[in-house]
Amino acid sequence: MSAVPRRDMPVCDAWLVRAFALLGKRWNGIILASLRPGPVGFADLRRAVGTITDSVLSDRLTELSAEGLVERSITDSRPPGVTYTLTGAGLAILPILDQLAAWASGNLAPPAGHPVQQHSG
Amino acid sequence: MSAVPRRDMPVCDAWLVRAFALLGKRWNGIILASLRPGPVGFADLRRAVGTITDSVLSDRLTELSAEGLVERSITDSRPPGVTYTLTGAGLAILPILDQLAAWASGNLAPPAGHPVQQHSG
Repeated sequence: MSAVPRRDMPVCDAWLVRAFALLGKRWNGIILASLRPGPVGFADLRRAVGTITDSVLSDRLTELSAEGLVERSITDSRPPGVTYTLTGAGLAILPILDQLAAWASGNLAPPAGHPVQQHSG
Repeated sequence: MSAVPRRDMPVCDAWLVRAFALLGKRWNGIILASLRPGPVGFADLRRAVGTITDSVLSDRLTELSAEGLVERSITDSRPPGVTYTLTGAGLAILPILDQLAAWASGNLAPPAGHPVQQHSG
């Protein structure tokens, strides 16, 4: 997916294209949402995200870090570990993701194979 | 992209996966945003969306209609035309798309090839 919008596109839509170039990539939105609780190690993050592979998760974390949304830290533990945390920019998208989930819950048919249950928060 | 989340996934995230299964598909978010002004004919919509092909736009409109977000109407004109309009569910996502664009504008590097300009509404 190209992040290059047309020059004659309204500015608002150009930024929307930019947002979807990032969030439209499979897993990116879910990775950001999974980092909500605070610093998470790689293995826990992979479990939280679901059926993602190590190499794809690693690529996505590199991309999200390059975009300034995720920060990688070395812990003081022995042996040292690596954790991932949302930056301020990453935290700022969480309320919007909540609204997207609430909108989906109120307006789309339930996900296949998932119990029918309304989003509550 | 599969819309089937894991059963042990929090409900909120399951709906988020559902939302991104739809909005993560290239063009879908931009098509919804392009229908904001009201009923739009196919050719005008294609121009508004950008470099999309007729067949992809047609597929996306079919999908968005099946999801209940877009309505297809036959106009009374001679010859009869077809227009596309957002349903209530489609309209309900517009404020969220605005917030996404504003978030991108405030937190991401500008789209490549696009003048640096802040999103203003």
